[in-house]
Amino acid sequence: MPNERKKKAMDRKLAPRAVVGRLSLYLRQLEAFQAAGQSRVSSNQIAEVLQLRDAQVRKDLAFFGQFGHPGIGYQIDDLQAAIRKALGTDRLWPIALVGLGNLGRALIRYREFERHGFRIAAVFDNDPRKVGTVVSDYEVQSIDALPEAVKTLGLSIAALTVPSDVAQDVVNKLVSSGIRGILNFAPVALRVQPEISVISVDLSIQLEQLVYKVTHASGGVSYSN
Amino acid sequence: MPNERKKKAMDRKLAPRAVVGRLSLYLRQLEAFQAAGQSRVSSNQIAEVLQLRDAQVRKDLAFFGQFGHPGIGYQIDDLQAAIRKALGTDRLWPIALVGLGNLGRALIRYREFERHGFRIAAVFDNDPRKVGTVVSDYEVQSIDALPEAVKTLGLSIAALTVPSDVAQDVVNKLVSSGIRGILNFAPVALRVQPEISVISVDLSIQLEQLVYKVTHASGGVSYSN
Repeated sequence: MPNERKKKAMDRKLAPRAVVGRLSLYLRQLEAFQAAGQSRVSSNQIAEVLQLRDAQVRKDLAFFGQFGHPGIGYQIDDLQAAIRKALGTDRLWPIALVGLGNLGRALIRYREFERHGFRIAAVFDNDPRKVGTVVSDYEVQSIDALPEAVKTLGLSIAALTVPSDVAQDVVNKLVSSGIRGILNFAPVALRVQPEISVISVDLSIQLEQLVYKVTHASGGVSYSN
Repeated sequence: MPNERKKKAMDRKLAPRAVVGRLSLYLRQLEAFQAAGQSRVSSNQIAEVLQLRDAQVRKDLAFFGQFGHPGIGYQIDDLQAAIRKALGTDRLWPIALVGLGNLGRALIRYREFERHGFRIAAVFDNDPRKVGTVVSDYEVQSIDALPEAVKTLGLSIAALTVPSDVAQDVVNKLVSSGIRGILNFAPVALRVQPEISVISVDLSIQLEQLVYKVTHASGGVSYSN
């Protein structure tokens, strides 16, 4: 199955999922090297920090047409631009935040999004007591206002932070409003049409995985992607 | 490399990482079936909801000694108990929450943890203005109080929600205090001894991965594990 999936991805000129996951890690690490004053970096430096093999890093980057020069390495600026283009984050993505509970409020104030090409453009909730209030400069809108906002703000992505029991209903509204990608924080399996993308972040799952590692003393650093 | 890693895992009687990741998904889905009034479930039902192959589900569960009966399927109670035992979540895990920013506050109020065998047992911050205040029934403690708390509360896991620039320093303190597993929300690569487990949840990375899927119209539901 993994091989079939990999083959299918290559046929469509898509990178395998694991490579795409590593691209984000490379991007973060390049930012760190840049913040430390470097303008060039070798595949070996990247590999060491991320605990990957040098050959793996070079292979991943070659997939996107990037080749380091012996003794010089990669120009960090160029490599960042190439990776952002490959990921699709070479432009700003406005995001609809849907669900203004504790997690929603935390995401509104999360500074990292803007640094990486994302901006919460509008905030929605279906609680009449919240609609019309202002939270961190956002006027909370009714979910009924979504179709209009999708058009006027050019939204295609939503972060979903509503309770589990209403998540599927809200997802149906998001999709019918024109949203095509959902970052889902509700711990529930969502059903969507095949052309809609969903990535679910379930923090209890991450803790379970961590407990497994601790219990089996397998150790190591990993990323949830 | 994946094959080497897989082989190594099997040698140590550890399940491959992908299987462990799916165990959490099975557990969530079993809860959903149970909530819907079912006491038994077939591998096929699980496979369909999670968009996996039936054979994959049966193989994963067989890894942990669980076998469904033809025409009867799996007893949900038994299967849940076996998966929790395999993951190590058949007991309650007290957690240290370190860093009381917006995300920390959201995690304190996150109800799902308790449902899955986790309980935030103590809250730490190194801001003197926060230490001593009470947030959602937790008295915020100085990070200096960690070694003592690790002993008295039997903590081995921490959720880290501090700013990136202090994350590595705090991690060093966590590890020297006896913490063995860290769920890291700071978007930075952490360095730890090989026996310490870290899982990093970087929400910008999840958004980048989502943008890639949307841009390439690859669609589908996936989980960040």
